[in-house]
Parts: sequence; structure tokens; C-alpha cells
Amino acid sequence: MNPITLKLQAEPLVRMALEEDITSEDVSTASVMPHAARGEVRLIAKQDGVICGLDVFELAFQLLDPTAELHACVSEGDEVHTGQELAVMEADVRALLSAERVALNYLQRMSGIATYTRKMAALFAGSRTQLVDTRKTTPNMRVFEKEAVRVGGAGNHRYNLSDGVMLKDNHIDAAGGITAAVKAARAHAPFVRKIEVEVETLAMAREAVEAGADIIMLDNMDLDTMREAIALINGRAEVEVSGNVNAENAAALVGLGVDYVSSGALTHSAPILDLSLKHLKVLE
Amino acid sequence: MNPITLKLQAEPLVRMALEEDITSEDVSTASVMPHAARGEVRLIAKQDGVICGLDVFELAFQLLDPTAELHACVSEGDEVHTGQELAVMEADVRALLSAERVALNYLQRMSGIATYTRKMAALFAGSRTQLVDTRKTTPNMRVFEKEAVRVGGAGNHRYNLSDGVMLKDNHIDAAGGITAAVKAARAHAPFVRKIEVEVETLAMAREAVEAGADIIMLDNMDLDTMREAIALINGRAEVEVSGNVNAENAAALVGLGVDYVSSGALTHSAPILDLSLKHLKVLE
Amino acid sequence: MNPITLKLQAEPLVRMALEEDITSEDVSTASVMPHAARGEVRLIAKQDGVICGLDVFELAFQLLDPTAELHACVSEGDEVHTGQELAVMEADVRALLSAERVALNYLQRMSGIATYTRKMAALFAGSRTQLVDTRKTTPNMRVFEKEAVRVGGAGNHRYNLSDGVMLKDNHIDAAGGITAAVKAARAHAPFVRKIEVEVETLAMAREAVEAGADIIMLDNMDLDTMREAIALINGRAEVEVSGNVNAENAAALVGLGVDYVSSGALTHSAPILDLSLKHLKVLE
Amino acid sequence: MNPITLKLQAEPLVRMALEEDITSEDVSTASVMPHAARGEVRLIAKQDGVICGLDVFELAFQLLDPTAELHACVSEGDEVHTGQELAVMEADVRALLSAERVALNYLQRMSGIATYTRKMAALFAGSRTQLVDTRKTTPNMRVFEKEAVRVGGAGNHRYNLSDGVMLKDNHIDAAGGITAAVKAARAHAPFVRKIEVEVETLAMAREAVEAGADIIMLDNMDLDTMREAIALINGRAEVEVSGNVNAENAAALVGLGVDYVSSGALTHSAPILDLSLKHLKVLE
Amino acid sequence: MNPITLKLQAEPLVRMALEEDITSEDVSTASVMPHAARGEVRLIAKQDGVICGLDVFELAFQLLDPTAELHACVSEGDEVHTGQELAVMEADVRALLSAERVALNYLQRMSGIATYTRKMAALFAGSRTQLVDTRKTTPNMRVFEKEAVRVGGAGNHRYNLSDGVMLKDNHIDAAGGITAAVKAARAHAPFVRKIEVEVETLAMAREAVEAGADIIMLDNMDLDTMREAIALINGRAEVEVSGNVNAENAAALVGLGVDYVSSGALTHSAPILDLSLKHLKVLE
Amino acid sequence: MNPITLKLQAEPLVRMALEEDITSEDVSTASVMPHAARGEVRLIAKQDGVICGLDVFELAFQLLDPTAELHACVSEGDEVHTGQELAVMEADVRALLSAERVALNYLQRMSGIATYTRKMAALFAGSRTQLVDTRKTTPNMRVFEKEAVRVGGAGNHRYNLSDGVMLKDNHIDAAGGITAAVKAARAHAPFVRKIEVEVETLAMAREAVEAGADIIMLDNMDLDTMREAIALINGRAEVEVSGNVNAENAAALVGLGVDYVSSGALTHSAPILDLSLKHLKVLE
Repeated sequence: MNPITLKLQAEPLVRMALEEDITSEDVSTASVMPHAARGEVRLIAKQDGVICGLDVFELAFQLLDPTAELHACVSEGDEVHTGQELAVMEADVRALLSAERVALNYLQRMSGIATYTRKMAALFAGSRTQLVDTRKTTPNMRVFEKEAVRVGGAGNHRYNLSDGVMLKDNHIDAAGGITAAVKAARAHAPFVRKIEVEVETLAMAREAVEAGADIIMLDNMDLDTMREAIALINGRAEVEVSGNVNAENAAALVGLGVDYVSSGALTHSAPILDLSLKHLKVLE
Repeated sequence: MNPITLKLQAEPLVRMALEEDITSEDVSTASVMPHAARGEVRLIAKQDGVICGLDVFELAFQLLDPTAELHACVSEGDEVHTGQELAVMEADVRALLSAERVALNYLQRMSGIATYTRKMAALFAGSRTQLVDTRKTTPNMRVFEKEAVRVGGAGNHRYNLSDGVMLKDNHIDAAGGITAAVKAARAHAPFVRKIEVEVETLAMAREAVEAGADIIMLDNMDLDTMREAIALINGRAEVEVSGNVNAENAAALVGLGVDYVSSGALTHSAPILDLSLKHLKVLE
Repeated sequence: MNPITLKLQAEPLVRMALEEDITSEDVSTASVMPHAARGEVRLIAKQDGVICGLDVFELAFQLLDPTAELHACVSEGDEVHTGQELAVMEADVRALLSAERVALNYLQRMSGIATYTRKMAALFAGSRTQLVDTRKTTPNMRVFEKEAVRVGGAGNHRYNLSDGVMLKDNHIDAAGGITAAVKAARAHAPFVRKIEVEVETLAMAREAVEAGADIIMLDNMDLDTMREAIALINGRAEVEVSGNVNAENAAALVGLGVDYVSSGALTHSAPILDLSLKHLKVLE
Repeated sequence: MNPITLKLQAEPLVRMALEEDITSEDVSTASVMPHAARGEVRLIAKQDGVICGLDVFELAFQLLDPTAELHACVSEGDEVHTGQELAVMEADVRALLSAERVALNYLQRMSGIATYTRKMAALFAGSRTQLVDTRKTTPNMRVFEKEAVRVGGAGNHRYNLSDGVMLKDNHIDAAGGITAAVKAARAHAPFVRKIEVEVETLAMAREAVEAGADIIMLDNMDLDTMREAIALINGRAEVEVSGNVNAENAAALVGLGVDYVSSGALTHSAPILDLSLKHLKVLE
Repeated sequence: MNPITLKLQAEPLVRMALEEDITSEDVSTASVMPHAARGEVRLIAKQDGVICGLDVFELAFQLLDPTAELHACVSEGDEVHTGQELAVMEADVRALLSAERVALNYLQRMSGIATYTRKMAALFAGSRTQLVDTRKTTPNMRVFEKEAVRVGGAGNHRYNLSDGVMLKDNHIDAAGGITAAVKAARAHAPFVRKIEVEVETLAMAREAVEAGADIIMLDNMDLDTMREAIALINGRAEVEVSGNVNAENAAALVGLGVDYVSSGALTHSAPILDLSLKHLKVLE
Repeated sequence: MNPITLKLQAEPLVRMALEEDITSEDVSTASVMPHAARGEVRLIAKQDGVICGLDVFELAFQLLDPTAELHACVSEGDEVHTGQELAVMEADVRALLSAERVALNYLQRMSGIATYTRKMAALFAGSRTQLVDTRKTTPNMRVFEKEAVRVGGAGNHRYNLSDGVMLKDNHIDAAGGITAAVKAARAHAPFVRKIEVEVETLAMAREAVEAGADIIMLDNMDLDTMREAIALINGRAEVEVSGNVNAENAAALVGLGVDYVSSGALTHSAPILDLSLKHLKVLE
């Protein structure tokens, strides 16, 4: 992760996660380790997948012991295999024990998303279509999950409601139609924003392209309708396809030749990658 | 969720999630809805499952519009079915549009966990064994995920490192053995805590029971070893079984007759339950 | 201001401003008003200008007394005149006295910016060119100052570094040239962002347009060079003009026919609009 | 600025300002500089004035890169001239690019205030009268603006409502008169506070001095009335003059021989000092 | 307590205290009261003393249940007696149970301080000397403890390091003498501050008065030396006496005729007043 | 204190306490020490007692000057004597002056509690009974006060409402009896919690033991009743004795042979230990 984002956005969240897990004292650790002692512990893969979040993992320990250091044998985005030793984490033994779970909770989730994304992105390799994520992220985890998507090989859609304009069914209902909605957005939104419209029918797609949408998202259409919509848009707007796209059904979309396919499953339904910290050794 | 926990613990997190999604202005909504207008929108199930988190869902809207009200047709923990209308959410249209994604992100995850838990807990129905969760929760989501586990029909293990003593492999290594670790915990930990020890072999189980552990967790043992360990412990401590327990493999554990089976999968790998907000209607 | 932005972004800042001004107790007010009493006070214009920030003004009082109410005789964006009574603020007398300065500090600055912007925007009325602001705002005041610019009649440029791509001299130096910088941004930035490049020479403008920039900003060029640059770009990108634009020199830019003229002066150098709260009356 | 104030009061505000400008990622910088590289950039004056806020400027970079270092050729409070190179800022290139605007926004405003204050304070040089500021500061900027006033050569009035007693028209109305207000303040306020009363007429001045006010502020009086008031007070209280004092009209007040002249314009209407960061160089 | 101070300063601290006592869920209460029910509980004095902090007490419940209401039979500052029923607190039973300890922890400490202060202040009744507190308060409790001192009948010294100037031994050592220290403070401190100097000898007292100190504090002198110092100062400065003053030894100071006697014991060593919440009744 | 607890829980509170004492600037220190200078100051005991909180004391200085260092001649928990020099604190002189009061406020309170606890714990030395604390701590001071109790030689009861189950009179009233309350807690509370019941009569004690309470607290019983209760319980539950236990009356409880005696007085009524920082020396 970008070190500035790690410091400004991620660090306060990791600190909160540590406070969630230690509200007064880590009683077990304080019992068995009353004094300072340097130690190390090994990070082991218990599944095949893509590793992601090593800097967040290290940060969790550093927030409890600023001298903590990760000695990694792998790099962000590497494929890892069951049983492989990925890194040695070195710190005060108490920090090793107390931050273990929080550090792993981040690393396992980010790696799970990167693994799932890598698999789905592979389907689009060589095509003109880019796989992208959505805002269907876990609350207060977006900065981590969007990073994991990138490490997995897909792109990011808008980060949040403030930095992109997307006019969905409910916005169109509120505005009284696509044309009115696009016009309102053109008037109100900063000019550096592209305007995207979500459409469910060919008629909506036509209205969107005529209203001057920069991007048109085809939502939950069947393949034939999508093909007709793409022909109708005919390059006058970028085209995104969305609607319950996951690793099982994405292959069918490759041949469409759209610009973007977005999938909420990347962040809302990827299982974790199983990882473990073992073999604690007191060094001094 | 307990209303005090909702107010003290959940509310600040939901507010942060809204701030994560709206860092300056919801540009799309501000464009199409420049003025106040009361509206309603319908919550629809797009999958079968267990609904959970309705109070958190409502809270997300209330934080943007204090007069927002959820009119629910279902109760927390109810089974819901594809296509079923679950509730009508009523609020200022701008709050409906701006809080939609955050509200659904919570509701879908909590319902996903409750659904997955309900399925796994059913395996243990009628047995003496209680299914419980772990600390393998998503960072800054624990209060929501532990609640979803309860609504799904399982129990909660300790909440965090401060409110339970669990001596795992790394603690035992640090202390120099089970007996020393239990003794240290007995001396240091507040007397209201039970002391739990994680063991991987029969020898460790024997040492733990003799050291006076209140609870012994059999970690990653095969079924035969578990049976021997249970016989060896013979009621002198409560027994918990753990280690990669999920919906696929849990049934095999029912016959063991242990007190608790814990499963990280409940919170780290349950897919979301697909839900949608549709049919926005401006009421005024 | 959008009520959701007011609640999520503005309210915590207004609360901080009150805490900046009252660190333990408002000693003067606590001395003269030991008991609760409803009162009202009148908001008077002491200069001609555009009023802006009435909702922020009211909020400052409501944070000290939730029953506080503004009875305004003018609307956001109205022209006001020296001596004119603009509103009656009603609340507990202690809230009236204690929030007065903070409320006025916001209102005077926002109105000052709106006034200055209105004057400059008038120069562009009827032209195809929109006047927009910059990120040269006062720290922790951006949400208020960008709103005041809109109320004054100009548009907003990107809100911050996260929601727009602008490649300036230092970015271009870091990337090793415009083409490389645009390519890097195209690869990395979410596709919903337009890519803007700041250029200082015709050669740079040519390179930017060929690299596929969506927007080209002509920075600190003289009028003739700007005309040449516009001809060279020839509609292949939107054009923005920038560089020490203020109320004194903006008129010269109107005839250029560019899409946007941006001015930092709108937010960094507008003097306040003088306003006063007078004639406190205890109502009970 | 006092380093303790810089750490306790200023640092959290500077961090917030960075978060205001970077809500997820600095997309432009992350695009062009994906890896770490040390760099430097030059701070250039684009106007004549007084430089102020160099420590705040440096802090903005250090919050993103703790190894950032400012090599300044000028000292706090020095006069600077158009085109002069003031400092070289050295840090990770990404920190240089990402903190640039926030750092300059502070430095330009503080320098603008110091420049304006220096000019006005010069009018009082050699007289017995000290120029002081007011509470008409920008919300959440007071600690920076009051410092800039001192660097510019004027003094500070009270910091906020908690650390000084000032009985203004509205307090006097609430208390039912000057004598009652002073008596209430004498009884309630900590004895380490001086009590100041704002008066608009000679009769009020007489009542204030007889009530035992420590300081009397003559508000918006004409010169003749002020002279009469000063004669009437006759050294029995310190005297402050206030009311729309700015660089244009302050000279007329010098001859009055009062103790203090306060001016809101110092902080509410000083234009910024134009400064720029140029010539980024990657060092490695 | 002033309602604005209660809201701005006290409320965030009371909320933190509730979060300190409830980090995830009040398990006992959630067990016995799974559903909403209105209830009441009685506040009983178990010692004689002065009641103080009723608004803070009520606030603790209101933060968990906004409809909570205190029906008090006594007023702030009243003398109460063992066994006396002081109030009925009405709220959701869960709020009554969950906020009980935090509410009592505040009320008992504030009442303890008010009780102790009342006793010591009585010694000075009718004299020209006012008893005042110090900054020897419990961290993060100052706003409550200074209020309790006032309710007990004494006055407040400066609130903190920012709102009063006190030159103590260590400051004088740092400045190189009293005269230098006073001169530095006169030059640097806002003119609304009085300047106080702490002296330990007659020579220091003489130097302080000649340096123009507004207040001179006689620190840890014996009675005879204090008398000499008072004679020496002879009305040229206000006089404060300090140094281990408590309820046992304060009487000896009454006859000195100084302006202020300050006592850290008021806030650092007053025992609590024993109070209890009994007889919970479910109302519905 | 455990360094992780010091960092995660204590540090934010100490920072807040510094902000409570320095809201804008330490005016006295800024006056006498305008420039950086290393210095040292001596920590002197002015009473006999037990020293506790040295790490918190040092932290207060380090938060203002990261290079501050405590050179202590004593260790946490040592007995100290009037006049003894305990440590030399070395830091920037401004940090020494500005953090002095906050650092001492923590150290004096923690040492006061440790001193009082040591005295009371001595009564139970050699017996089977452990002295423990309660939740009657000062708001936002619990982490410091519970640590001081341990350093003083007693044990900690539950930390807060979330990490222990205690069914008191009001809970029992709410549940409709002891049996119902225990059953509800057994069903709801995480299984790692022991369940404690507070009883006031023999009948209640009998019901509690039969309901399966893990711990029974005898509240405010006379000695004879306690003996009967202990006989009745007869080892079927752990036994705690509570109710206005303090240094004066605790001796009578030693002979009872219960497991725990809890005393609120340890944290709510211990006077501070008088300590002082003297002899500031500028080192450079």
C-alpha cells in the first residue's frame, strides 16, 4: 500500500482494531511474559493463494512495539503455497503475542480478496476488458479491500460517493428520468468527474447515451441484451457491465468486449486465505 | 443488538463507515435531489437466508436523518426468501440514497454470518455441544459479527484478549510449558476469568488438566485422538474442539459430546446474503 | 449546504471551533447569566454583500442549545445591504452569548467568499467559460469555502487529491515527462477520473493533448500564448486557465473562450463580510 | 511556534488538514511515483512580505515522512522578497508532492497575517500603544493565526472565552447594566483574570471605571469621544480602543496614547502571501 | 454545572467513562433484561455531606437512554444525611443498571470534594480571605472537580497553564531570577493575564513586589514569616498563601488577612461521599 | 504497567490530561524559556509511602519531548521515605516545566493508592484470603488505579461490565430472583465468564449456591452471618466478602477464611502521596 495512505488512512483503523482486541490488558500475555524479551515467530501459509497486506500486517506489530520488523521471504502479490514459510516477524514477545490476531485478521482477508481477484482477473487477461471492484466493501475496511483488489490484478471503481458520479435506478427515480438526472449532475458535479449512468433496458441505454453520459453501466442484463446495448452505444460512451458477477459466471462476459466488468463478489464474498503464526522463539 | 451496545459501540463505527463513503458530499444525490423530500424505498431479499442487523441498518439512515424510520415486515433472525419484501425504509430521500450502500453493507454481512451460522448450528441441535465463534472477525466489525453469530443460533467465545484467558502454543512456548503458563495466569489474571489451555497432543491435555485448566481446547486433533483426550480429561475441565471447523466438516464432531466446538469460518468466510433496496418513491 | 454534508463533515468542525473558543467555561457569560433564560439577538449587515452560511451559523448555536432557532429574513445567496436586519436568532441567552463569535466567524468568512466570487463570476456571465475554485483553501475550512464558492456563483474544481487527477510541474518532473505521467495515471487511477495536465508552454500543451489528457490547464501563460495553445488543442481536450487570477485581472480572460478559469483568490484572499449580532433581548 | 504548542495543539489540526486533502489516496502522486525516492523541492517567494509558519510547513511533510527536513535560508519573521529562494524541503518525493498544498496553505496564510500585522504594527512603533489581535480568527486556525500576529510584531488579546473576561454590550444587557455585570464577574471569575468592559459612550465609560473594571475598551467611538473617555478614565483602568481598525485607518489612533488598539482585520482580512514550491528534484 | 460546559467539556468525558466500563456489552444486564422496560431506582445517602454533580449523574443515564429523567428531592449543594432519599432516577431498566456505577463514581467524587470544601471554607467565613483550589486535580476530572469546589463554597484558581501566569521556583530558576521572569511574562503573556509569583523567602517577596507582580504567593512559609511578608508587600500586590493546607491546619491561616488561601487537598485528598442506588422497580 | 497497555490505553489518556492543562500555550514557560535547552529536575518524596506510576510519569514528559528520560533511583513498588530523592527527570526545560503538574498528578494518585493498598494487603498476608479492588474507580482513571492496586499488593476484580458477570440486587430484582438471574446469565454470557452473585441474606446465599453460581459475594453482612453463609456454601462456590471494607475495619475479616475481600476504598478514598519536583537545572 502507498505509505502515505498507510499512515493517514490505514494506521488509525489498525490502531482501533488493536483497541477492539485489547480493551484493558492482554491478560494471557501479561501473565506469561511479565518482562521484555525479543522474540520471533514464523508466518506460514496453510493454503495456496496470493499474499497481500504484508505492510498492514507489520504495522499492527509496530503499533505495539515500534522496533518490530518483518523479514519477508515473499513480496506483495506473490503466489504462496500450503506449508510455505512466508516471513519471520521479530519484535518484543509481548507485541508478537498481542498483535497476532489483529495482524492475521487483516492479512488473511486482504490475501483472500487478492486470491479471489487474481483468479477472476485471469479470465479477462488479454481481452480489452478490465475487471473492477465496487463499493460493496466491508465497513471501515475499504482502504484495505480496494488495495487487495489492485494487488489481485483488477482495477478500482470509484472510491466512494464523493469522488464519482453514478446515477442508479433510485437516483433516476428521484430526478424524474435519465435525461434530467444527467443534466442535474452535469450542472452540479465538479467538472473533473465523469458521469456514469446505470441502465437496465435498451431504452434506458439509448436515453443515457443521448443525455451525454460518459460511462454507461449495463446492470443485470442478459447477454443478448448486453450485445444490443453495446451496439447501440457504439463507442459514444464507455461501457461497464455489472450484476452478480463472480468467479463462476464471469467467463461468459469476456467476449462482450466492454470496457469494464465490475464485481461486488471480489470484496463481499471472498473467503479468507488461511495463514498462521507458529514457532515463537524467545531470542534473548 | 442490545440498545446500549448499539449506541456506545456500534454507532461510532457506523458513523465512520458513512464518513468513509461520503468524504465531502454525495455528488450524485446532491445533484438529483437539491431539496428536502420525504421518501420510501423497499428492502428486498435476493437470496434465501436469515436476516440480521435490522437495527444497524436503520441506524445508518438515522445518522443522516434522525426522523428516519424502518417499517419491518420481518424480525431479527427470521428466515427470508428470494424476492420477499422485508421492510420499507422511510426518510428524507437524500438520506435514503446516501446511506443505502453503508446500510446494506452491514445488513448483508450480518445476515450472511447469521445464515451460515444457522446452518452449522443446526448440526448440533439436540446435542450437548454448543457451537461458538472465535476472534477471527473482520477488524472493527467484531461487535456486529459476534451479534450475528448469536442471532444465527451459536454462542460467543471470549470477546477479546482482555476478557478471557487462553493459553495457546505461543504463550506456552513463552512461559516454558503448560504448567508454568497456567500458574502464571492463575497468579496474574483477575479471579473472575476461567483459564483455557489449547493443546495439540494427549500429553499436553494431561498436563493441562493436572495444571488446573478450567477449559481445555483440543486443537487440530483427529477424531480418535480427540476421543482419547476426552476420556483422559474425564470431566475435570470443560472441553472445546477447534481447528478449521466449517459447514462441510462440522457434522463429524457432533458425536464427540464435547462442551464447545468453535469455528472461525462463521465470521471469516461466510458469504454475504444478497439484499437490495429498490423502488424509491418520493412521498411528497 | 447539503444537510448530510452539514451533519457528517461540517458539524464535527463547528464543534471543534466551539471547543477552541470555550476550553473550560465562558467565564463572562457564566457570570452574568447563571440561570436559563430564553432570548433573541439580531443579525445585522454592516457591509453590502452576499450572505452565505446561515445553516452553519444556526448550527453553532444549536450545538450549545438544541432548541435554538434561526428566523431569517433573507435566503442563502441573497444580496444584503449595510444596516439591514438579516435574521433573529433565538435560543437560551447563554448559548446566544457563547456561540456568537464562532457563528459569526463562519458566517463572515463564507459571506466574504460568496461576495467576492459573485463579483468575479459576473465577469463571465453569458460567456462559455465557468469560473472555478482551487485547493488553496484554509485548512479545515474546505467544506465551508467550497460551498461559499458555489453560493457565490462559481463552480468547484476537484475537492482534494483523492478525487481528481492533476499532473503538475512537480509530478511531471517526478514521472520524467508528460507522456509518461499521463500513461501512469491512466494505468493507476480509477477509470471514473478525468486526467488533467498542467502545462506552461506550447510544447507541453502539444505533448499533453497527444498523451490523451482529458483536461489541459494553461498555467501562468500570457494571453497570446494562451490563444495559441487553445488553437493547438483545438477541442481535443477541455481547457482550463489558471495563475494568479483575481477580481482585478479576470476580465481579460473572458474573451479566450476556454472552458474553465480557476482562481485561488476566491478562497485565499477574499476579505470577510462585516456582520454583527446586536440588541440581545431576554424573552422571559 | 512553541514546540509544545506545535505538538499538542497544532499537530492534530495539521493532520486533519492532510486528511481533508487526502481521503483515500493521492492518485496523481501514486501514479507517477510508485516507489520510494528521496527528493527536494524549493520554496520560492512570489511576493514581498514576512515569512511565518516554517515549523508548521515542515510539520506537514514530517507527518507523511518522519525523515523530512527543512533547510531554511530564512528565519521566522524575516522579510522576504519576490523571487527569493527561502528554503529547500527534502523528503520522500511522495511526501513532497502530497503535502505540498496543505503545507503552503498554512504557510501562505500565516505569512499573510504576519505581513499585514508588521505593516500595521509599524504605525505604533515608538508609541506607548500596543497593537493586539481579537477572537475574529478563522475557525480551527486560532493557534496559527495568533502566532502569526506575534511574529508580525503585535500582541495577543485573550485566547478564548475561557481565559479572559470581556463584558460586551450583549453581556451588559443580559446582566442589566455595567455595575451588575462587573460585580457578577468579580464574584464568579477566577481571581487571576482581569475584568474588561466594552463601552460605547462616556456614561458607560464612567460607570465601568467606577465599577472597578481593570480594562475598558472604547468601542467604535469617534476620536473626540475617545479623548474625552481617556481623560475621564484618567489612569484608573487600562484602555483599549477597538472597532474596524485596519491598516488604512490605524494611524489616526497612534496619538491617543491608549494602552492597546485591537484589530480584527489582522486575522480576518489579511490576504495571503504568495509562495510556491518549484523545481522538484529526485535525489536518488 | 453551566449547561454549555456540561455539553462541550463534560459530556465527551462521561461518554468515555461509560466506554471504559462497557467495552462490548454489559453482560449481566443483557442477560437479565433482554427487552425494553421502564424502571426507577432510588438514590440514597449513606453518609452526611454536601451533594454535588446531580446534572453529571443524570447525564450518564441520558447518554444510554435519552429519555432518562432525574426526579431530585435535593438541589446542588444541599446538605444531605445518612439514609436520606435524594432522588428517583427513571429510565429504561437497562440504562439504570448499566450507567449506575459510572454515574455514582462521578457523583460520589464530586460530593466528596464539595463536602470537604464546605468544611474548610467554613473556617474562612466572615474573613476577608477566600479559599481557592489548585491544579492538583485528577487527570481528566478537572472540569468536575473545579465545579465541586465552587459548589462547596470556595473559589477557583486558574484553570490551567494557558489561562494564568504563575512563576514558580522552577520558572524562576529557568529565567535566572524573579525580576527577569516577571519582565519576560509581562512582554510575552496576553495583557489580560495577571502575573503571579511564588516566593519562599522575604527577599523573594521583596523582589516580586518590586518587579511588579500582580499577585504574590507565599509558599510553605511559617506564620511569622508570612506576617512579615504581608507587611512588606503592604497592599502593593494581592497575596495568596499556599503549601499543604488542609482541613486540619487551615484555621491558623484565617487571621493572616491575606486575599487567598489555596489548598490542593480540596481536590487531591477528599474522600468520596458514600451514596447508593437501591430498590430498582420495573414500572411496566 | 504492561508497555502495551501503556501505549494503547494509557497514552491517549495522558495526552488528554496534557491537553486539559495546556489548551493553547503554557504562558509562563513560554515567557521564561523562549528557546530550547536541556535540563533536569529532581523528584523528591515528601511523605513515606509506596511509589507507583513511574512509567506514566515519564510518559507525560515524553509526549512533549520524545527524548525525555527518567533516571530513577527506585523501582515501581518500592517503599520511599520523606526527603528521599527518587529520580532525576531529564528533558527540554520547557517539557519539564509544562508536564510537571500532569506527571505528578498521575504519580501522586497512583502512589497514594499503592500506599493505601500495601497497608491493607499486609493484614491478609499469610492468610488464604486475597484483597481485591472494585469498579469504584475515578472515571477515566481505571487503567491507572487498577495497576496501582496490583503494585500495592492486592488483586484486581473484573475490569468492567463487559468482562465479568456480577448479579447484584438490582439485577436480581430485574430478573425476578436469583435462580432466574443465574439461568439467564448462563444462557447469555460467553462461557469463559464465571458467574458471581451478590447476596445479602442466608436464604439468598442458599439460592445462589443451588443455582450454580461460581462465586458468591456476601454483601454488608455482619461477621456471624458471614460465618453461617460460608458454612452453608461449604466450598461449592468461591466466596467474596464486600461492603465498606477499609484499612480501619479489614483486620476483622482475615479470620473468616474467605477467598476474596473486596474494597472500594482502595481506589475511591486513598489520599495522594505527596511528591515534588525541585531543583530545576539547565544543563546547556
